[in-house]
Amino acid sequence: MNFRTDLALERCEILNKNSIEGIESETLSYEKAKVTRIDVTNKKGEEAVGKPMGRYVTVEVKSLAEQAQFTDESLCTLTEEIKRIIPEEGSVLVAGLGNNEITPDALGPKCASMIFATRHITGELLKATGLVGLRSVTSFSTGVLGETGAEACEIIKGIIHTVKPDFVITVDALAARNVERLGTTVQMCNTGIVPGSGVGNSRQEISKNTVGVPVISIGVPTVVDAATLILDCSGNRENEESVYERAGDMMVTPREVDLMIERASKLVSLAINCALQPHIKPEDMLILTS
Amino acid sequence: MNFRTDLALERCEILNKNSIEGIESETLSYEKAKVTRIDVTNKKGEEAVGKPMGRYVTVEVKSLAEQAQFTDESLCTLTEEIKRIIPEEGSVLVAGLGNNEITPDALGPKCASMIFATRHITGELLKATGLVGLRSVTSFSTGVLGETGAEACEIIKGIIHTVKPDFVITVDALAARNVERLGTTVQMCNTGIVPGSGVGNSRQEISKNTVGVPVISIGVPTVVDAATLILDCSGNRENEESVYERAGDMMVTPREVDLMIERASKLVSLAINCALQPHIKPEDMLILTS
Amino acid sequence: MNFRTDLALERCEILNKNSIEGIESETLSYEKAKVTRIDVTNKKGEEAVGKPMGRYVTVEVKSLAEQAQFTDESLCTLTEEIKRIIPEEGSVLVAGLGNNEITPDALGPKCASMIFATRHITGELLKATGLVGLRSVTSFSTGVLGETGAEACEIIKGIIHTVKPDFVITVDALAARNVERLGTTVQMCNTGIVPGSGVGNSRQEISKNTVGVPVISIGVPTVVDAATLILDCSGNRENEESVYERAGDMMVTPREVDLMIERASKLVSLAINCALQPHIKPEDMLILTS
Amino acid sequence: MNFRTDLALERCEILNKNSIEGIESETLSYEKAKVTRIDVTNKKGEEAVGKPMGRYVTVEVKSLAEQAQFTDESLCTLTEEIKRIIPEEGSVLVAGLGNNEITPDALGPKCASMIFATRHITGELLKATGLVGLRSVTSFSTGVLGETGAEACEIIKGIIHTVKPDFVITVDALAARNVERLGTTVQMCNTGIVPGSGVGNSRQEISKNTVGVPVISIGVPTVVDAATLILDCSGNRENEESVYERAGDMMVTPREVDLMIERASKLVSLAINCALQPHIKPEDMLILTS
Repeated sequence: MNFRTDLALERCEILNKNSIEGIESETLSYEKAKVTRIDVTNKKGEEAVGKPMGRYVTVEVKSLAEQAQFTDESLCTLTEEIKRIIPEEGSVLVAGLGNNEITPDALGPKCASMIFATRHITGELLKATGLVGLRSVTSFSTGVLGETGAEACEIIKGIIHTVKPDFVITVDALAARNVERLGTTVQMCNTGIVPGSGVGNSRQEISKNTVGVPVISIGVPTVVDAATLILDCSGNRENEESVYERAGDMMVTPREVDLMIERASKLVSLAINCALQPHIKPEDMLILTS
Repeated sequence: MNFRTDLALERCEILNKNSIEGIESETLSYEKAKVTRIDVTNKKGEEAVGKPMGRYVTVEVKSLAEQAQFTDESLCTLTEEIKRIIPEEGSVLVAGLGNNEITPDALGPKCASMIFATRHITGELLKATGLVGLRSVTSFSTGVLGETGAEACEIIKGIIHTVKPDFVITVDALAARNVERLGTTVQMCNTGIVPGSGVGNSRQEISKNTVGVPVISIGVPTVVDAATLILDCSGNRENEESVYERAGDMMVTPREVDLMIERASKLVSLAINCALQPHIKPEDMLILTS
Repeated sequence: MNFRTDLALERCEILNKNSIEGIESETLSYEKAKVTRIDVTNKKGEEAVGKPMGRYVTVEVKSLAEQAQFTDESLCTLTEEIKRIIPEEGSVLVAGLGNNEITPDALGPKCASMIFATRHITGELLKATGLVGLRSVTSFSTGVLGETGAEACEIIKGIIHTVKPDFVITVDALAARNVERLGTTVQMCNTGIVPGSGVGNSRQEISKNTVGVPVISIGVPTVVDAATLILDCSGNRENEESVYERAGDMMVTPREVDLMIERASKLVSLAINCALQPHIKPEDMLILTS
Repeated sequence: MNFRTDLALERCEILNKNSIEGIESETLSYEKAKVTRIDVTNKKGEEAVGKPMGRYVTVEVKSLAEQAQFTDESLCTLTEEIKRIIPEEGSVLVAGLGNNEITPDALGPKCASMIFATRHITGELLKATGLVGLRSVTSFSTGVLGETGAEACEIIKGIIHTVKPDFVITVDALAARNVERLGTTVQMCNTGIVPGSGVGNSRQEISKNTVGVPVISIGVPTVVDAATLILDCSGNRENEESVYERAGDMMVTPREVDLMIERASKLVSLAINCALQPHIKPEDMLILTS
């Protein structure tokens, strides 16, 4: 059974085994958040979850769409997990992937626009801000191939060429299998990303292999493939082909998808900002980026 | 079986009978458009389709999302059907229903913003335009209860009180059962509307009964209820309750829903404008409203 | 000299006298805010400031565009002055005036969209919120004559007819003479408003005379008429006619006008919400309306 | 006298001489458009107009804000002048400069989003389109330093590194001295651009010197510096310093600036698209990019 999903966690769930060779995982439960850290340690693990060797961390929070504001715990847990997976030091390029004109695909561009870019804050400008120990951050939206004529990977490689960051963080909207994960889960990994792979429209891989520096990928599932949902709910896969034909271009989102994207973008960008500049308190970071 | 849909045409299809008592219908096929006119003529018809007595016209065009521009035929057919269902003369209030902040619900507000309002074009201003024989048009978005604190019906009744139009046209996003109808079908009827009834969130009825003047309702299906799609595709209704529990708040839209809404809004508003001001050519109307 | 301005305070400054017959005023200075309360008490005062008898309160805060967040004092002072000028009890209709499509004119619509509408929160819904003692609030944007075909005044009268509020609050962008007041000053008065009068495009007066219930008007200057600025800076009025011909359609705004409008809308709507529901703390109000 | 303006034409007007050494110009008048071609041919010319040696072409059309659609002649004249100034062959990167969040600065990003990107249209996709002889086009918005942490010039250099275009076209909003030129004039030159120089906020030069391939710059004036307008209208320069202090951060725009930007973006992007793909008719180009 080949459900479409970008989440390593869901791929493990589908396998439905107590232990999988080449997969190690641990789970931490907090009051308002749950963290699962999955390590894919060898080829067998790669085949089992369909993802390259590396670490995949999932932070599940209360519904982003329901909660009226960021609980301290959600933000704090997410920030901590991002700090654990990124290099402790070094300059960074944060790249928002996806199409700003299509609501459920706009997470990347919206996050990129809220990232606290600091690379230009030097000399007099730095003195004026009164900030110290800033990590150098560049922030950017790659656009999409159909609009720009260039792959996101090419844009990122180009900016790396001039800006020379030590590593890259990508932010993208993901596909999940389970509707309950939409807007409630953040996945981060240290193996890069193949944009669009969760919805059957794969683009060039963005990873250390292709761009030359480490790539940390952060994403939030915002859609379920309609065909996946139908097959999943109906419980039989016999009419699979006809379902894909009928619903192949359709996606499932919460009714309040615009609100969900807005809130998820705020939470993820704030957590990235706090993880990158640990000297700045969340409340001050909110002011710096609003 | 109680599939959620706002389309009289789909309710008749579900009944799946050659003839239904109290229902009369005729179908016209053009090269790029298909028109179905359904008349609900008595109580038995009302019960069968779950809609009040009156006329329900469906215009099916090529996908609004795919076609790069309005083919003359789509626009022309739609304009003609609107002209047939509205009063030949008299002033009108066009009311856009729905939430402009939620993409698939924004059809009404977007259309309202593109309606050619003319009520204030009199005296010197009228001379300056060089236009003659203008029908008086007022255009408005009602907002939604959660944002305004007032029902769309109350807003419309209030504006009728001061503006005194001879009739009302409402424009709203609808729910369909069949994903292929999303953005490809326009329904109009002369019985008014119960906003939100297709997605299980009914608001006050807007009809001659409640507002005192005839109400023509025009809509385009933009979502399929996720539960409806699942039950429909799975072919069995045994697990109906669990499906509603699991997917009740989810909706299915085309991936390109933002584009679909934009194009449908342009086509529908242009057709309404042309039907209301038949002396003005479509190409001139486009200029007047752009 | 007939500078264009909507601010009673600036009209008094232009007169440049220690005391004006029919005008009484008092000034309160706080650390981060300054309040001026002007009372126009008779016909002589009306003629002197070109405004009807009544109270005009100006709250000057630090630049809304510069400050990164609402200081407690700005918000608190503004809320207190609004509480002083509105009726202590009774239901209210908040009406946003102006054109949402033109940035410096969008203050009214943006505020209206952030007002905490409560009129529909009753019965089960009220219980679910856990709130008590809510004042009934309806919130609405009137649109503009050129888009709707109806005067803002007509729309407000219509909604009053069905919703029956005890009083009205209008919110609108204003014109000032002094560029330093843009986005830094809030004026409120109990005499209603003639929309557009500050920029030479007067619409129907909205006041107790025209709509039948008291009208409190709140506004923030967002533009200076270009001709006013030129004449003011040049210090001579001889070429007045040629200046109006040349710059009559131009307006002066800060470069960061989009940011200024966003911040002013947030501050003003939050202050109105807090003044209307004094039992709810500002931080909780922010959550309720975000 | 040092009026702020980005237009070579206005710099020549200010000099107010019949002939200037190092400057050659010719003017062509059409019914609805006027073309001025200025060549700066030596150092003396450079000093006189404050612009590097090269060609500066100005196309003046009827007000973009007033005219309801593109007259054939405006579009045709503009397309022809763009064709004359760009290389006849070769791949191109179109870079939109400026801040999409600030209305009068959004011309570049808006144009970039309407450019017909073709670089990825090859193989099966090209066959499917039925198009032949497409020039390779990549399109991109650079963002602004304060948001991204990287100079527009750095972004462009990076993308040139991976995409390897033969030349670059930049699109940017400009500053003029004369309010009548706002939204009515298009300037193009073959010497690149120093973004922000017209409003006293210069960024890194984007030219063949800095990015390694020829740079054609196209722009439309959308603002007049408020201080420039005041000094210009007042006719005396004595209080220059106090004027800059008072109005230095202010800009002058037409009231309908949002509409002006939208129309200018459509016209300029369509003319660029038509100049780059001369085999495609304007009406088909409109469909391809809508």
